[in-house]
Amino acid sequence: MIEDKNQSRTDLSNLGEFALIEHLTKQFKINHKSTIKGIGDDAAVLDFKDKKVVVTTDLLVEGVHFDLSYMPLKHLGYKAVMVNLSDVYAMNAEATQITVSIAVSNRFPLEALEEIYAGIETAANLYNIDVVGGDTTSSTKGLLISVTALGEVSNTDVVYRSGAKPNDLLVVSGDLGAAYMGLQVLEREKEVYKVNPNSQPDLEPYTYIIERQLKPEARKDIVKLLKDLEVKPTSMIDISDGLSSEIIHLCTNSKVGCDLYENKIPLDPQVISTCEEFNIDSTTVALNGGEDYELLFTISQEDFPKIKANPNLSVIGYITEVSAGMHLVTRAETKIELKAQGWKNFNA
Amino acid sequence: MIEDKNQSRTDLSNLGEFALIEHLTKQFKINHKSTIKGIGDDAAVLDFKDKKVVVTTDLLVEGVHFDLSYMPLKHLGYKAVMVNLSDVYAMNAEATQITVSIAVSNRFPLEALEEIYAGIETAANLYNIDVVGGDTTSSTKGLLISVTALGEVSNTDVVYRSGAKPNDLLVVSGDLGAAYMGLQVLEREKEVYKVNPNSQPDLEPYTYIIERQLKPEARKDIVKLLKDLEVKPTSMIDISDGLSSEIIHLCTNSKVGCDLYENKIPLDPQVISTCEEFNIDSTTVALNGGEDYELLFTISQEDFPKIKANPNLSVIGYITEVSAGMHLVTRAETKIELKAQGWKNFNA
Repeated sequence: MIEDKNQSRTDLSNLGEFALIEHLTKQFKINHKSTIKGIGDDAAVLDFKDKKVVVTTDLLVEGVHFDLSYMPLKHLGYKAVMVNLSDVYAMNAEATQITVSIAVSNRFPLEALEEIYAGIETAANLYNIDVVGGDTTSSTKGLLISVTALGEVSNTDVVYRSGAKPNDLLVVSGDLGAAYMGLQVLEREKEVYKVNPNSQPDLEPYTYIIERQLKPEARKDIVKLLKDLEVKPTSMIDISDGLSSEIIHLCTNSKVGCDLYENKIPLDPQVISTCEEFNIDSTTVALNGGEDYELLFTISQEDFPKIKANPNLSVIGYITEVSAGMHLVTRAETKIELKAQGWKNFNA
Repeated sequence: MIEDKNQSRTDLSNLGEFALIEHLTKQFKINHKSTIKGIGDDAAVLDFKDKKVVVTTDLLVEGVHFDLSYMPLKHLGYKAVMVNLSDVYAMNAEATQITVSIAVSNRFPLEALEEIYAGIETAANLYNIDVVGGDTTSSTKGLLISVTALGEVSNTDVVYRSGAKPNDLLVVSGDLGAAYMGLQVLEREKEVYKVNPNSQPDLEPYTYIIERQLKPEARKDIVKLLKDLEVKPTSMIDISDGLSSEIIHLCTNSKVGCDLYENKIPLDPQVISTCEEFNIDSTTVALNGGEDYELLFTISQEDFPKIKANPNLSVIGYITEVSAGMHLVTRAETKIELKAQGWKNFNA
């Protein structure tokens, strides 16, 4: 835990709110022409000219969405940004600005907030995002980060969840289930640590899946790739809650059905081996695991030649009439109805 | 407290996230042409055409910003919106959309969330705001509301904190200190209640100041009034942390000084009488109390005739050269340097 480390420690109570925000945000640079005024007034002022504006927001709560015993604060700041950018990219938009609000208890020193902001800054620099506002306040308990992301998109580029048509192909970027299996490994090591704090875990076989959990990347590159390939998806959504739940959202919003092929779901070898080790079915993990932050989208069949050679993209099924329902076609070629089991935070 | 009431109670764990958000937001109407797509996709899509966009965000945390033993949940939802709209109006902009994120522990039933959303809806209807997105999640402890507000403003109308010039008049809307004194009364009644839960407090003499604390109003009407009067402020800020702190912000951002006249600070008679009862100096309350959500702005002297007859506006001082410093001119005509003592959340 951060507060157990023997490091320099500045109490937040030594700083006023304004000094604190100034201290944490002074290094942020403004890169976008659309940012007229960033931090420092009652509100940021932005100018998107003839572009449309997309807005999305997400909360990350300690003890619900992250566990500081294995989530470094810098990664937490980075991930809080990614979760939101992912939603912007799912609109086929360019992410341009974020606001960041943090509630933090007095048990955290200034240095902890600096770590979170370092992660936010890294994300902002890598993804070319202006940090234009926010709020930092105390909480009675725990840490909470709320990020709102803005982006811009032209009228012709914007992609909704509702545009999928029968015979469209269902496509997913990257691979699935890794973030969930990374979490399982981290949870296991936490239990081992409780029993024996001197144990030195060998996490080498799990590098990829742990990174997917602790440092996810939003797929800005896929939005660019599709533009370069001149493919406009007919519908798109990001995968935050598990493939199954997201497919159901796409199909419900588009009033269509689908066939998803189990043997087409992209899995990293580390996911497969770790699933074997934990004795979990890898398809279940991909369908319900969540936190992959890949993009799920549909394209017209005529666009298939443009994407088929790309190693970043997998065609995993196709869209059907709504009356056909939503199904998983298993390796044994049986059809099972798709069910969403993703989000369980309120059942904790 | 809400959970002690004998009322219908639906556990949040009985609903999934999507069903919950759908349930809470289904009654929201979209009124603005700039809202192309509200709740229901990865992000909202907005179109501001040739207008500039203003964005601001604020967090309200249980135990820090509000106390549910005297803050009704409906008022809390209302206030969370007002706090943000106030920042939009302080840019001389029209507020158009909000996103709302709520973290809530399982001790709150669905009916509690419904109350909060009822307050949000009331605010949205009264102030003509579209609710376009949000996030509802569980917390390990307590309740937290994060609102982001968007607004639109033309290039010629936008007002920053930085435009005040020497000889400009310093003007404030409404009256000051009431929200702080309302809080003092509520805190006192809470202590009385702890000793004697059967006591029936007579809050009649404090109606106005309690309402200012529990149900503040953002000054949309002042933005319209100034437009109607054809007065464009040279600088503007909203009063959330106390007059003193906000004047210092305006002057620092504008690189000017000021003379503030103690005998010009507008006080409601209930503030004066309650200050006497509590034996607190009413000027100190107005300077440092906070949560008034009035607008503080500067105007050119030539605009004075346009505003002088208006009962909503008080000229409380004037802007000086930066070298003259920032001062309060007391009733005894002595000059005291202005100091910010507003925000103390991290010192709690």
